[in-house]
Amino acid sequence: MSAIFGKEILDYIYNLFSLEDEVLKEMERFGKENDFPIIDRYSGSFLNLITKIKKPELVVELGSGFGYSAYYFAKALENGKVVLIDYQERNIERARYFFEKGGLTDKAEFRVGDAVEIAKEYKDIDILFLDLEKLRYLEAVKTLEENLSEDAIIIADNVLWHGNILSETDRKAERLREFNSYMSERYRSIIIPVGDGLLLSVK
Amino acid sequence: MSAIFGKEILDYIYNLFSLEDEVLKEMERFGKENDFPIIDRYSGSFLNLITKIKKPELVVELGSGFGYSAYYFAKALENGKVVLIDYQERNIERARYFFEKGGLTDKAEFRVGDAVEIAKEYKDIDILFLDLEKLRYLEAVKTLEENLSEDAIIIADNVLWHGNILSETDRKAERLREFNSYMSERYRSIIIPVGDGLLLSVK
Repeated sequence: MSAIFGKEILDYIYNLFSLEDEVLKEMERFGKENDFPIIDRYSGSFLNLITKIKKPELVVELGSGFGYSAYYFAKALENGKVVLIDYQERNIERARYFFEKGGLTDKAEFRVGDAVEIAKEYKDIDILFLDLEKLRYLEAVKTLEENLSEDAIIIADNVLWHGNILSETDRKAERLREFNSYMSERYRSIIIPVGDGLLLSVK
Repeated sequence: MSAIFGKEILDYIYNLFSLEDEVLKEMERFGKENDFPIIDRYSGSFLNLITKIKKPELVVELGSGFGYSAYYFAKALENGKVVLIDYQERNIERARYFFEKGGLTDKAEFRVGDAVEIAKEYKDIDILFLDLEKLRYLEAVKTLEENLSEDAIIIADNVLWHGNILSETDRKAERLREFNSYMSERYRSIIIPVGDGLLLSVK
């Protein structure tokens, strides 16, 4: 690729196009105070935009944390719903609190437990979002392929692994490379090189 | 935004996900030999993927050159067509040659003349792609807004202006900033910071 842009230009993009929302700001503060990693705001805006284009009926998230990324999906939904799944009940309770505050609970379903196991209950998933334990990305996709709708989109966060994706000694990097290779062979895919790397794949 | 990735990682992305096609490679060689600027391959793959998600009936390109970006649109179309417009007849003839070679002429319409004037003939444009003279971006969008379909997408190339978008002395940078601001206020938009900056906007 030809151009690598510096911080000043990335800030320009970030400031010009962020989705403004008071609940999102509160979630960002909560994440910061509790040292809870969330996707960056640019990636959130990207999820929101892709959802507007795709118009999904069913979005399923694996690894929702306290609902920050799910909130961007929910804000873009017209009719469908987003299923939030996290193995920690307190995360899902926190997500429910934020969704209530944002008036978005009618667009969401809140589930506690193993993300892959719970996701298997859903058929015709239009957007599958992966943000669970990185070692499980490939297993998650392979397990859930039969649960995807015909033209499903798969989106995965952290696929550049903090810029360490090419590391030969990092086990998670190695597994993420396997995942990226699988996605490039089996789907039309692209990685958006922002935040921690966002993979977008189409069946 | 949190992370800026280096050349090694951008090359990893580029190599893993490029769309392989012999005609595209020939077009790349032609562009290089004739010093004719084209979008980079990553941006092409992005256009292709968005088209697969959007499933447009009508794509209109302003400033098609010899058809490199249009080819990525055409390859992703199921039923629709892409209208190529360029003011130079020899560019459009060259595009026709490449589209014939790729077996894609049934998905394309070839037009010679002023891009904005010709585009006005089309109604319900699902994807409007801007790659014409940069000083005309804002005029083009304002003129063609009434020709867009209800959920249209607008995509514009070069919106980071070779990394000079923040220049205070470059007239084109100033006009592109005006365009970017307009798009951020009137649409849900995002800039993909690859190639020369690709704007994606949804009505």
